[in-house]
Amino acid sequence: MTSQLHEECGVFGVFGVEGAADLVRIGLTFLQHRGQEGCGIAYTDGKGELVLRKDQGLVSRVFPEAVRGGGRSAIGHVRYGTTGGGGVDNVQPFLFCRRSGSFATAHNGNLVNADELMQALSTQGALFHSSSDSEIFGALLGSGLKGGGTISVPLLSRVLNRIDGAFSLLVLTDNALYACRDKTGFRPLSIGQLGGGYVVGSESCSLEAAGVHSIRDVRPGEIVRISADGTESSFYSAAAQCAMCAMEYIYFARPDSDIEGRNVHAFRKESGKILYRENPCEADLVVGVPDSGLSAAIGYSEASGIPLEMALVKNAYVARTFIQPTQEMRLNGVRMKLSPVRSLIEGKRLVVIDDSIVRGTTSRQLVRMLREAGAAQIHMRISSPPLRNPCYYGVDISSRKELISASLTVEEVGRYIGADTLSFLSEAGLMEAGGRSDLCMACFSGRYPTDIYSHEDNN
Amino acid sequence: MTSQLHEECGVFGVFGVEGAADLVRIGLTFLQHRGQEGCGIAYTDGKGELVLRKDQGLVSRVFPEAVRGGGRSAIGHVRYGTTGGGGVDNVQPFLFCRRSGSFATAHNGNLVNADELMQALSTQGALFHSSSDSEIFGALLGSGLKGGGTISVPLLSRVLNRIDGAFSLLVLTDNALYACRDKTGFRPLSIGQLGGGYVVGSESCSLEAAGVHSIRDVRPGEIVRISADGTESSFYSAAAQCAMCAMEYIYFARPDSDIEGRNVHAFRKESGKILYRENPCEADLVVGVPDSGLSAAIGYSEASGIPLEMALVKNAYVARTFIQPTQEMRLNGVRMKLSPVRSLIEGKRLVVIDDSIVRGTTSRQLVRMLREAGAAQIHMRISSPPLRNPCYYGVDISSRKELISASLTVEEVGRYIGADTLSFLSEAGLMEAGGRSDLCMACFSGRYPTDIYSHEDNN
Amino acid sequence: MTSQLHEECGVFGVFGVEGAADLVRIGLTFLQHRGQEGCGIAYTDGKGELVLRKDQGLVSRVFPEAVRGGGRSAIGHVRYGTTGGGGVDNVQPFLFCRRSGSFATAHNGNLVNADELMQALSTQGALFHSSSDSEIFGALLGSGLKGGGTISVPLLSRVLNRIDGAFSLLVLTDNALYACRDKTGFRPLSIGQLGGGYVVGSESCSLEAAGVHSIRDVRPGEIVRISADGTESSFYSAAAQCAMCAMEYIYFARPDSDIEGRNVHAFRKESGKILYRENPCEADLVVGVPDSGLSAAIGYSEASGIPLEMALVKNAYVARTFIQPTQEMRLNGVRMKLSPVRSLIEGKRLVVIDDSIVRGTTSRQLVRMLREAGAAQIHMRISSPPLRNPCYYGVDISSRKELISASLTVEEVGRYIGADTLSFLSEAGLMEAGGRSDLCMACFSGRYPTDIYSHEDNN
Amino acid sequence: MTSQLHEECGVFGVFGVEGAADLVRIGLTFLQHRGQEGCGIAYTDGKGELVLRKDQGLVSRVFPEAVRGGGRSAIGHVRYGTTGGGGVDNVQPFLFCRRSGSFATAHNGNLVNADELMQALSTQGALFHSSSDSEIFGALLGSGLKGGGTISVPLLSRVLNRIDGAFSLLVLTDNALYACRDKTGFRPLSIGQLGGGYVVGSESCSLEAAGVHSIRDVRPGEIVRISADGTESSFYSAAAQCAMCAMEYIYFARPDSDIEGRNVHAFRKESGKILYRENPCEADLVVGVPDSGLSAAIGYSEASGIPLEMALVKNAYVARTFIQPTQEMRLNGVRMKLSPVRSLIEGKRLVVIDDSIVRGTTSRQLVRMLREAGAAQIHMRISSPPLRNPCYYGVDISSRKELISASLTVEEVGRYIGADTLSFLSEAGLMEAGGRSDLCMACFSGRYPTDIYSHEDNN
Repeated sequence: MTSQLHEECGVFGVFGVEGAADLVRIGLTFLQHRGQEGCGIAYTDGKGELVLRKDQGLVSRVFPEAVRGGGRSAIGHVRYGTTGGGGVDNVQPFLFCRRSGSFATAHNGNLVNADELMQALSTQGALFHSSSDSEIFGALLGSGLKGGGTISVPLLSRVLNRIDGAFSLLVLTDNALYACRDKTGFRPLSIGQLGGGYVVGSESCSLEAAGVHSIRDVRPGEIVRISADGTESSFYSAAAQCAMCAMEYIYFARPDSDIEGRNVHAFRKESGKILYRENPCEADLVVGVPDSGLSAAIGYSEASGIPLEMALVKNAYVARTFIQPTQEMRLNGVRMKLSPVRSLIEGKRLVVIDDSIVRGTTSRQLVRMLREAGAAQIHMRISSPPLRNPCYYGVDISSRKELISASLTVEEVGRYIGADTLSFLSEAGLMEAGGRSDLCMACFSGRYPTDIYSHEDNN
Repeated sequence: MTSQLHEECGVFGVFGVEGAADLVRIGLTFLQHRGQEGCGIAYTDGKGELVLRKDQGLVSRVFPEAVRGGGRSAIGHVRYGTTGGGGVDNVQPFLFCRRSGSFATAHNGNLVNADELMQALSTQGALFHSSSDSEIFGALLGSGLKGGGTISVPLLSRVLNRIDGAFSLLVLTDNALYACRDKTGFRPLSIGQLGGGYVVGSESCSLEAAGVHSIRDVRPGEIVRISADGTESSFYSAAAQCAMCAMEYIYFARPDSDIEGRNVHAFRKESGKILYRENPCEADLVVGVPDSGLSAAIGYSEASGIPLEMALVKNAYVARTFIQPTQEMRLNGVRMKLSPVRSLIEGKRLVVIDDSIVRGTTSRQLVRMLREAGAAQIHMRISSPPLRNPCYYGVDISSRKELISASLTVEEVGRYIGADTLSFLSEAGLMEAGGRSDLCMACFSGRYPTDIYSHEDNN
Repeated sequence: MTSQLHEECGVFGVFGVEGAADLVRIGLTFLQHRGQEGCGIAYTDGKGELVLRKDQGLVSRVFPEAVRGGGRSAIGHVRYGTTGGGGVDNVQPFLFCRRSGSFATAHNGNLVNADELMQALSTQGALFHSSSDSEIFGALLGSGLKGGGTISVPLLSRVLNRIDGAFSLLVLTDNALYACRDKTGFRPLSIGQLGGGYVVGSESCSLEAAGVHSIRDVRPGEIVRISADGTESSFYSAAAQCAMCAMEYIYFARPDSDIEGRNVHAFRKESGKILYRENPCEADLVVGVPDSGLSAAIGYSEASGIPLEMALVKNAYVARTFIQPTQEMRLNGVRMKLSPVRSLIEGKRLVVIDDSIVRGTTSRQLVRMLREAGAAQIHMRISSPPLRNPCYYGVDISSRKELISASLTVEEVGRYIGADTLSFLSEAGLMEAGGRSDLCMACFSGRYPTDIYSHEDNN
Repeated sequence: MTSQLHEECGVFGVFGVEGAADLVRIGLTFLQHRGQEGCGIAYTDGKGELVLRKDQGLVSRVFPEAVRGGGRSAIGHVRYGTTGGGGVDNVQPFLFCRRSGSFATAHNGNLVNADELMQALSTQGALFHSSSDSEIFGALLGSGLKGGGTISVPLLSRVLNRIDGAFSLLVLTDNALYACRDKTGFRPLSIGQLGGGYVVGSESCSLEAAGVHSIRDVRPGEIVRISADGTESSFYSAAAQCAMCAMEYIYFARPDSDIEGRNVHAFRKESGKILYRENPCEADLVVGVPDSGLSAAIGYSEASGIPLEMALVKNAYVARTFIQPTQEMRLNGVRMKLSPVRSLIEGKRLVVIDDSIVRGTTSRQLVRMLREAGAAQIHMRISSPPLRNPCYYGVDISSRKELISASLTVEEVGRYIGADTLSFLSEAGLMEAGGRSDLCMACFSGRYPTDIYSHEDNN
């Protein structure tokens, strides 16, 4: 699928490694697919202070050179943001300065009781410097530090127990790095050892890139404190229960990441096989929509015996900021990002594998483009169930109105996008692909694993 | 003198004028001489929210285009900062977000009890986002807003009474603009009417540039609240007593500004006349060191009858960031900024008028350069008394050690810089030039008009 | 393969279409893979003059906005260049101004008698403004315009007959666009109709992107003159014989391009099938090296029945300019661009499909990385014959010394890169994949289809 | 006067000095007032080749760092250009590459027979790469090098004899630097010795900045060849006769430059004295319009005994690119660049000294601004005669229509600009100030010292 779903952010942290700040730069480069709006790195300066550098843009723009200097620990963040969302002030990490010890935070996810907490904090005199719900962590920690003291596991436990929603959170102090994951485990967070130190990151691929091998997931509800004494694990909630976001497997994560023991590419390939089993099709070739539909397409091809062809080619140089042509050309937006290969397509019956359908407009343009390239038949197969409900945990689907499957039947959607046939993977098929039943599938089923507070109104 | 003294910042605010944010851009351009490190503008968006834009660099870099949109009030800030001083986080205005109403602050000056206040605020759980003492205003206001409420004159009065030191402070809320000046009146702040609205700025020249004519100074200890109901004046302290920074007249301010009723150029020209009366000299020509020495040179020439010549020319295109040549040229740093006019200087006896001597290195290079250009005699005349003490109110002279006059006699300084004769204006002469005795002359005399708290140790 | 082979440039032209200059911008975006160093567009201004805009960097950097204005014809160029190669002066198109009519040129390819021609032109008083051999076209045309006159097919024919080597050349005048291809047909050039006008481009994918459908190749030795009267075809040489560069199919061109009737992806997939037939292998999975090895990997998998896995993932955000980490991490350069998927690789026997081996260093790092990720066996299969000879027609392989296969046997190369087995496609297999025997395979076989002049010495 | 007159360019060259390219950077910084549109440096690379770096923008933008490397000779250029004038292609130096030796040129001035020469060269097959008349030097030299050979004094003599108009020209080859000045000597060019090498530059101030002391002017019609053998002087024309551009003294040149033995500040000051003698006035203060009116104001004040005040202050931070405010403020354009000092002006009778009046619009805004600041009377005194004729030698006054004094009498101009009285310096007075009668005063008198060819028509 080509960029209609988005999740907010990725985090990366290092403790006890020489050149920690620059290692975070490397790690963020491998999380860049999770957010391109801005990024930052907070690091110890080796003299008891924290330093923060952040700006809008890609990692390669904000940190065009290696980050020199700094001590042996650092955290970083890549941000996905909606247009005009607050500028550089909303770019993380956030740095909170205090006389008795500064700290920095980096957060991936979305809080569901943010409004309630901000109201309460404001009454207590708290001031905010951004419009991001991620600043709530700092404000609650600051509030808990009245009378002095420093960040600690008990304080973090008290704070995290007040927060509902999705968070994979890093907190950096002068002498410790805390890696925390919400008790539902919506967002991934992996941790591993590098030499005498430790590395944490939103996806395992970023740890691999940093040279880390023995990698485990931070567990739902777990707080891992990393310090000169090694790691110390505790759980802030006894109510922890896993409901990993299914869209991480389906769309967000890189295929080379392992999430909770399951490789993302393997998941997708398996979902492609099941998709064929559930929705077989006679056709001449299988075409995956780059990049996220490719793995499922390999699976579909393998299961069906229908040959796989690269009949859709992505243009790597057409960035999100690409300017549309001035004139009335017969080019649609999808055409700038994907090129159909006429000589492969002409006269052929196509099974087109995509990961999801959001508004339907992209699929409609895609089908039209393939027909113009001469396709005889177009059978759309989607490797996930229909999206019917908004997400409050960090996936950027703001309202039910935008979701075509919320108001139309599968048959109607098929007609709208112009495909000969259309089918989706079943919820059961998705769980089978994952080899697990504890996924958050709220956006498909409407069953939210947490209270959703005031969001119920605009549900 | 060429840039060894610096003061932190200038502020500018507008209330009740269409295009307020862009008018602040214009005003800041006329305060740019007070700070070139960074700048920002906070403005109402016309819908109850405040918007902040800020970055490092000149006004023309940060705001390369007119600032469009925004409501009818705004404040801005230009920052002078030492190298590497905290990056964009220290650039003002600061924006403090609250559920019951955000506010922004812009501050010119230096607090003397900043350490004590930050310590106290930290104990209460306050978090800071910069390393600037200017954030204390926001933190104290936030602390005073516990339990709700909004910025008000009584709250500001309570807060300002806790703060010692120099401040000209602007506070912007959704519906009011507060212009405050410390009770000693160290830093200038002027206010005037424009159409149905109001404009405030660090120097009167910036108000003139904005088209404002009937201008008065905000008084020491005064809080001017500007709202839809017009202006309302109150005083937060009964102990107000003026001690305007003498260096504002001598060096910082633009010659076209009037500070507390006295034009800066006129002050300087008069000081040049008195300088001649106190320290006459036989010479062929008077040379002022651009830019701040020119007015005094005109006065010296007029009083002495010795012709004035532009025998030192400033290179407008050599910025602070000019890269020194790679090779071992016989060029000193002063030579890149000032060019001596050989044909005017050769064989002549010169009276060179400068505004001050800090370390003595610049004067030494200047004298050498003039000798190489053929000067027969060089008589240095300084239009202020010798600098012997550090400033804690915002002038960037951090320690006594740097001040050549703190350890050497005038005769020794003269010998060090290589002049034939050297003399300084007396303290009495300085007061006479100002037509007032209530100037802060602590850097000359060591008599500080306020408690200086812990600074006494490194005095 | 990851970027050790490079070809110089792509060209794109438009005649008789509204918004021609901006359409060239779109086209160049789809040729960006052929050159990232610089780009430019020359276009008619609608008033009889030509305008040139060009700079170093990607199309999206040089033309961050739509190119507005201009007339109905334009040509453009993307340049691949070696480091420090002459700066912006070497970026094309070149504009040649004359009183009786200016013209612009854009050239893809490399001339073999450039030295001889420059020598001759210099003697006649010609001046050059770049160090690029592409300026020779302009100089020869200028020389032919002595005494007046304008660009014409007869003049072009005379000029092109003096030039040996590879060129796909566009020449733009105020009222015509000439599309020329050298008589050996080394470099691709396609042409098609768009509305009442015409579009030409280095690869058919760029024409498709511009909305052109009925596309043909400009033929070896052909000059197509496009004017208000339509197109007019002539041949400058009777000796035309095709020897299309095999590397275009193997590595340079986009998989969605058709070159002389053969789709590039289809070619590569077929070469993968033949590669299996020639060099079978027992293994658990087939892995293609992104991006150019993927198509062949699909073919190899299909032919062998060994499942295809995306066990190597490319990092889209690691640009050519990525800064290596400061410290001594255990990261090699390949690791920053490609990530192995441990959970897919561990304990498995791999067939790794790459398109070519140049120096061997990249393959060696790749093999090491796969072993570290747990691969049990690594069988490298290369979908082209060993590279043993330099190219003088535009592929950036400057000397035999750099080519590992020039001095080592296949077995020795296999040992050097650390693979369990290594085999290459045969020359016969390559021709079979192309369905044609008239490819230039000089870099494999050493049989150059043209005289190579003075290059013989450093051969 | 504030920027309505402009001259094209400044040149700077170095031969036989270590770090020549970077020394040119320094020199150009001191010629920046002569052109801000673009700049460049061509230098020997120490291995027989010339390297060119150039771009649009100030020296500090194009060369933000010291220019490292390069051999011991270099030339540079700063360009003044009209808006949109051809982009970077028109920025000099121009580099002309030839097999038997490249050369580079840098030119200050304007040719009067450019059209005729380009026509002739075009007929001979010459191609141009810019729309600048300065490329003619290269084309003529190239034409003279047919059949081989190198740049030499005889060749330059032949070429320069074909060219009419204004030029101070530098030509750099691998082993020599030629400094040439047209036979009328319109534009300045100075030369001096630095260590074992030589430095040439448009104004002596740039040579002083580079550390050169014994400076002489290149003479009208002179070619100075500088090589490893020292300097060699010849004259290309026996008809040489001086007519130095009067505007160089009046407006363009820096006050610290000496032109043909006369210091510019001294000239201006003297012209101020004569201006008083010719046009006395009763007033309270003398005000010079910064920067170019200041020297004359000092002279006027000295001669009249009327005190000089800095009642107009220039805003150093308002660049040419300053964006005007969005809204309808009562600010005129002059107001952004110059600030009147109300407290000095109020109720006073002013003599305002400016160097020239072009269109009259700026003076009119200035007078209005001074009246608004409270001036009781305004007596404008212009330190040059009325501008009535276009210049064909490099001063950017394109047509008679723009010149207010071409169509109005002095009295009418005075009424238009709103001054109480207005007078100009006489032509005789100007010559007296210069101590010479051989100035080019064509723009005042209409007596052009050369044939003006086809320009007569639009005269």
